[in-house]
Amino acid sequence: MTYLVIIEYMAVIVAAIYGVLLAARKGMDIMGVFAVAFAVAFGGGTLRDLFLDRTPLFWIGNPHYPMIVFGISLLSGPFVHHIARIRPLLLLPDALGMALFTLIGTAYAMESGTHPFVAVMLGVITGTFGGVLGDVICNEVPSLFVPSPLNATCAFTGAWVYLGMQHFALPERYALLAGLSVIVAFRVAAVRWNWTLPAVREVRGGKPPSI
Amino acid sequence: MTYLVIIEYMAVIVAAIYGVLLAARKGMDIMGVFAVAFAVAFGGGTLRDLFLDRTPLFWIGNPHYPMIVFGISLLSGPFVHHIARIRPLLLLPDALGMALFTLIGTAYAMESGTHPFVAVMLGVITGTFGGVLGDVICNEVPSLFVPSPLNATCAFTGAWVYLGMQHFALPERYALLAGLSVIVAFRVAAVRWNWTLPAVREVRGGKPPSI
Amino acid sequence: MTYLVIIEYMAVIVAAIYGVLLAARKGMDIMGVFAVAFAVAFGGGTLRDLFLDRTPLFWIGNPHYPMIVFGISLLSGPFVHHIARIRPLLLLPDALGMALFTLIGTAYAMESGTHPFVAVMLGVITGTFGGVLGDVICNEVPSLFVPSPLNATCAFTGAWVYLGMQHFALPERYALLAGLSVIVAFRVAAVRWNWTLPAVREVRGGKPPSI
Repeated sequence: MTYLVIIEYMAVIVAAIYGVLLAARKGMDIMGVFAVAFAVAFGGGTLRDLFLDRTPLFWIGNPHYPMIVFGISLLSGPFVHHIARIRPLLLLPDALGMALFTLIGTAYAMESGTHPFVAVMLGVITGTFGGVLGDVICNEVPSLFVPSPLNATCAFTGAWVYLGMQHFALPERYALLAGLSVIVAFRVAAVRWNWTLPAVREVRGGKPPSI
Repeated sequence: MTYLVIIEYMAVIVAAIYGVLLAARKGMDIMGVFAVAFAVAFGGGTLRDLFLDRTPLFWIGNPHYPMIVFGISLLSGPFVHHIARIRPLLLLPDALGMALFTLIGTAYAMESGTHPFVAVMLGVITGTFGGVLGDVICNEVPSLFVPSPLNATCAFTGAWVYLGMQHFALPERYALLAGLSVIVAFRVAAVRWNWTLPAVREVRGGKPPSI
Repeated sequence: MTYLVIIEYMAVIVAAIYGVLLAARKGMDIMGVFAVAFAVAFGGGTLRDLFLDRTPLFWIGNPHYPMIVFGISLLSGPFVHHIARIRPLLLLPDALGMALFTLIGTAYAMESGTHPFVAVMLGVITGTFGGVLGDVICNEVPSLFVPSPLNATCAFTGAWVYLGMQHFALPERYALLAGLSVIVAFRVAAVRWNWTLPAVREVRGGKPPSI
């Protein structure tokens, strides 16, 4: 389905741009920018492929994707300030890309015969863990895990919608469309109205000793 | 052996609870709590399975385990303070779980035909690296690697005891029992009397340049 | 080729020593020193093997390598200050080791039938990402990614030289020698004259929100 391929390209590009902005915040050089952009764009899919023992990895089998990320990293340096300013415009393509990666990850996991709960988890990992890896490389507490507009929760919900529609034997096309719509709408609304999950109350008095 | 299954469930539950406490220290939301609990409970076993190319991964083949961790993450939020208070009671089950994971990891590695030294290393990774991953996600220097009551050292010792008894052709059951006992007793004593390894003396004057 | 084996041993030893110095900066204990030395020495090769689905992993198939790293970690504790002082002497063996690992990684990837661009990337990962993993475990922004004397860039250049000479059907021996020479000379010059890539300008005003 051609439009899925277009969404996939867009998802990689938008994820790479987010990685560039993340790396620029740390004053990294081009090499660091590429590494973080790469981690954000392909980290989730790489974990999925390693966990499911799929070969070749997504970006090894599709070498034009890392080349695109490399090009973005090389060229974006002088324009980082401008890119930062148009970021709000990226909300919709980013949500769409995250949604697509989530549903593809879920579908691959189901193909491998995993339990639906695990399939949804692997879908959410595919869709959202690139950003976590990027944060870890940049020495930040992952923003996915602290209260901020819902992201993984949207992916989780949409993946269940997708599996639910498959369960009732609706055509794949509709299941995919429903899952994508739910994730995108939920995500955009969460950013618009700043929906967050509550923080679990912090335990006072230092890091817990390793039991 | 039924009692091993019971220890395994207990090990997953206790590891997840430790992850919840770790995440709560950082003010994470439920999604972060689940991610850290998951990393602590399954991180070591996942590394082992990836390194030994075992499929499916432990938690993909046993989907009730991630479901249990998910349930703990969802429900523990309001009770974090209380859980923090009873943590001392978790020392024994945690030591037992760490011991079991270490010996299972060692046994799997031996089955794959690895050298005993590598098998022991993979056992220690299985038993202890979940906590390291949890610390890395939480942006902390892993407590396993700085002077604190012996943990990996106990696992290392017990894994050699286990292999030693196998070497002398003692029944698997006794080798397992001996390994578990050594690890648990060593670990509990290390926490009780605060046995630590000495710190390697810090090098002054900033991070070493990349040579 | 015997001299390649000698370089490989040297590469592992020098990488382990760098890991020891990194861990000592954080006041880690012997266990932490071993873990970081291990990550620096084998991290890049492990990622390469996982990404290409090669089994057994480099250090599982060559158990004497982790044993050497273990010995270095055990013995180096009291000598950390002295080792830190002779580090400048390690520049050449380190550059040679990094060069060898890069070209081996590139060659393995080409054997697996990957696109040359991806093969070069995997070569660079093999040669340089051990240090990144060590930094992440030590809770530092990876020094590979911030402006400091060129490292990954040297590996990248030499890997293309190596592939270029293979492309023109020159004997493997000469391609290897050319690639090694380019990387080592480029790296030594970069350290000597402090060649760095420019930092991408930092974006002001806090971490970018997750779009």
